[in-house]
Amino acid sequence: MAPTSLGMTSKEEPKERCMKSSQAHGHFVPLIVAFVGLPARGKTVLAHKLERYLNYTGHLARVFSLSTYRRKLAPDIGCDFIFDPQNEEATEIRKQYTHEAINDCKQWIYIGGDIAILDGTHAAMDVRQLLYSLFVKQLGFKILFIECIVEDEILLEGNINDTVRLSEDYAHLEYNQAVKEIQKKLSNFPQHMYQLVNTESIFSYIKFYNAGENIFVHRIDGPFQTKVLNFVSCFRPMRKKTLYFTRHGESEFNLLGRIGGDTDLSPRGHFYATLLAKYFNSNKIENLRVWTSEKKRTKQTANGIKAPVESLAPLNELDAGICEGMTYEEIQMKFPQEFAWRDQDKLRYRYPWGESYIDIMSRLELVLLELEREDSLLVISHQAVLRCVLGYFLNTESDKVPYLGVPLHTVIKLTINGYDWNVDYIKFNVDCVDTYRSQPENCSVDRSNEDVLVTIPKHFDSNPWRKEPTLINI
Amino acid sequence: MAPTSLGMTSKEEPKERCMKSSQAHGHFVPLIVAFVGLPARGKTVLAHKLERYLNYTGHLARVFSLSTYRRKLAPDIGCDFIFDPQNEEATEIRKQYTHEAINDCKQWIYIGGDIAILDGTHAAMDVRQLLYSLFVKQLGFKILFIECIVEDEILLEGNINDTVRLSEDYAHLEYNQAVKEIQKKLSNFPQHMYQLVNTESIFSYIKFYNAGENIFVHRIDGPFQTKVLNFVSCFRPMRKKTLYFTRHGESEFNLLGRIGGDTDLSPRGHFYATLLAKYFNSNKIENLRVWTSEKKRTKQTANGIKAPVESLAPLNELDAGICEGMTYEEIQMKFPQEFAWRDQDKLRYRYPWGESYIDIMSRLELVLLELEREDSLLVISHQAVLRCVLGYFLNTESDKVPYLGVPLHTVIKLTINGYDWNVDYIKFNVDCVDTYRSQPENCSVDRSNEDVLVTIPKHFDSNPWRKEPTLINI
Repeated sequence: MAPTSLGMTSKEEPKERCMKSSQAHGHFVPLIVAFVGLPARGKTVLAHKLERYLNYTGHLARVFSLSTYRRKLAPDIGCDFIFDPQNEEATEIRKQYTHEAINDCKQWIYIGGDIAILDGTHAAMDVRQLLYSLFVKQLGFKILFIECIVEDEILLEGNINDTVRLSEDYAHLEYNQAVKEIQKKLSNFPQHMYQLVNTESIFSYIKFYNAGENIFVHRIDGPFQTKVLNFVSCFRPMRKKTLYFTRHGESEFNLLGRIGGDTDLSPRGHFYATLLAKYFNSNKIENLRVWTSEKKRTKQTANGIKAPVESLAPLNELDAGICEGMTYEEIQMKFPQEFAWRDQDKLRYRYPWGESYIDIMSRLELVLLELEREDSLLVISHQAVLRCVLGYFLNTESDKVPYLGVPLHTVIKLTINGYDWNVDYIKFNVDCVDTYRSQPENCSVDRSNEDVLVTIPKHFDSNPWRKEPTLINI
Repeated sequence: MAPTSLGMTSKEEPKERCMKSSQAHGHFVPLIVAFVGLPARGKTVLAHKLERYLNYTGHLARVFSLSTYRRKLAPDIGCDFIFDPQNEEATEIRKQYTHEAINDCKQWIYIGGDIAILDGTHAAMDVRQLLYSLFVKQLGFKILFIECIVEDEILLEGNINDTVRLSEDYAHLEYNQAVKEIQKKLSNFPQHMYQLVNTESIFSYIKFYNAGENIFVHRIDGPFQTKVLNFVSCFRPMRKKTLYFTRHGESEFNLLGRIGGDTDLSPRGHFYATLLAKYFNSNKIENLRVWTSEKKRTKQTANGIKAPVESLAPLNELDAGICEGMTYEEIQMKFPQEFAWRDQDKLRYRYPWGESYIDIMSRLELVLLELEREDSLLVISHQAVLRCVLGYFLNTESDKVPYLGVPLHTVIKLTINGYDWNVDYIKFNVDCVDTYRSQPENCSVDRSNEDVLVTIPKHFDSNPWRKEPTLINI
């Protein structure tokens, strides 16, 4: 196959672009991740999860799925036809949409992306050689191939079912018919066209066997490849998986509107812990395990649950530094400048000697990688931390993470649904204070106390300068 | 081999210790990293570099080398004798020192260590089975085996030379005699005793082939194993390797005693850049590459060097937040509380909206992993950043990192010397201000301006409250 087959020679590309770009943006050399493998090998799921992880950890990544381009260009053409190497029309269409996808990859890097993920089969060695020539030799990027290999028949069958359920290619078909269709497609796939990535290759590549049980790594090179391997080595695709999250029960400090600290549960918080234990003990979840933070209020919340419990420092609440244990009113009185700054940019604001949401996202990285492996796990943690965890799973825009709703006395249940997660909020019938504080309209330093107070949630308090102390009945 | 062979049954160990410990310390489940491989396969170098990386990234790790225990217990016994499986006395000695090393591993975890690295051959499968039984089944830790395999003859020869040069076992011998000795030992090593780690194994393991060209990964599990893989996939042991570091030439802000900012070089700074280019261009270092930060002063410093230049954001100077562009005197005037805090704990102190040294260490992680792969690289960066980089390579205690001396107009040359680095300071003959500020004696908030001023380096300035403005002649 000549370079023209991907249509890349018609327009001359700037050479050594990456160096110029990295001088402009201060980035590492950009990376193309190109998947390799037969259909139904789990490429698309891994591509999307990888994209999410990279973005969350601060590296701009985007998936470009060849099948999406194919459907856009030739919506009415079956995918068994498109892979027919004898058919000239099919070859032409394939060239065209591949060209589009590759162009979009380049554009993504040019506008500042770090990593472009090319999700396709790339089954033939000369196709990979072509990608290498273009991206590495011509453009000065790096390329990493990830080959997904499934040798386990049961795993493959599950993948096929998933593909039927999730891919738009089969949306118009009845389930059994779709399975037949995909099996036909797989057996029709020109096997001689699929050449395994050569282990003597000059390429950097990762071979991902049987959903991650074994991984073979060749010539990993550059920081983005390191990040990709980091994720790939932790990722275990599972057909069924449930994770549970809850904040500790209402604490004594919650009642008083004080932040941070390490107080006991309130009586209502203890009651929540009792109901929580009842819920998990009666549901008899197999192999259930519990992670708490190191704080008393999360450990007390886990107390009655019949499952192994581990306490992890990275699950501790955001450290409010010099404001630990204060009410929002006190912070406004003592540090109005700090409080205004926080309201202006809650995501990035760090309490003096304390943390920001960004800091939490960073210290959570190893925990999140663990959660990619875990199943049947209950995490009992805190408002800010759970916002960051949920933000990861739900792909929340980072500026919105500090305002995600994670109410007290509620279990948040995440179950896998293809590339995404189903979220259920299970609200327990135990009264509690509301700790949600929305961004006030006025975030300037010289705003009045009233302007600050307007979004402070109700709590028991005794602040002298507060006009109408609001008490909540237990 | 029965469990007693490692002497572990004599004293009963507490079961499920890790859960209790992690509840106490908030750690993840501790990890034992056990090396596997014939002598001269690069195990010890990798073990020590891994230890350094883990400690730097906040995970307490320590190496326990069986050969050190052997030498301590039986200093006069040759290592060919000790591996003789027929010799009962040798077997007994082996048991004894292995037992000691394992005990120290356990102790290290009990006192709060996250990771213990057991550096030895662990050639026989039943030895590994034993380690697994003890550490995983009995104690509830995790274990990861790293098998170092060298198939390349030239590589092996180099390793043998290194072993002769570095291992205390050969210190008493003349070089050629030592090489003969080690070759005899290798050919005498009971090959049937070495069983490769089985690829069907229930163990988590990494096979590290030919100095990292290929890596095979099986069942990586848990955050510490992820961190270990992270490093192992980046590490390329090299016999010869040189890294160069320098700060930018003196900048306009340096002259004025102002911190941060993005100013041009001073005339003297430009002169340094000229001499630096002359130095590197005339030395004709093969494949030389240059990394700068994104700041003008580092790019200008790289200007005349004939080598590819990349600019990387992680190499930018510590962000001083609200104090950017200020002199130390101005900071003292406007933010005496902040300045006192910084002096009290320079490592952890974060400027409001800015960074701490710890923050830099964290954002440097990917750069450091790259430096493990790189050779013939010149890094042009800034005082605080280079302190953190050098602290990594020189294994500096973290509290001392913010006070490492990294003077202007000096190239710091690091060359590999076995497990460690040789450091050369090449001072260029171009005058410049001194930007080193030592910790003052009085770090309290209510100290006088004079107490603060005492360690502020001399610079051109016009601060009205400074009694004797010190001017430096160019």
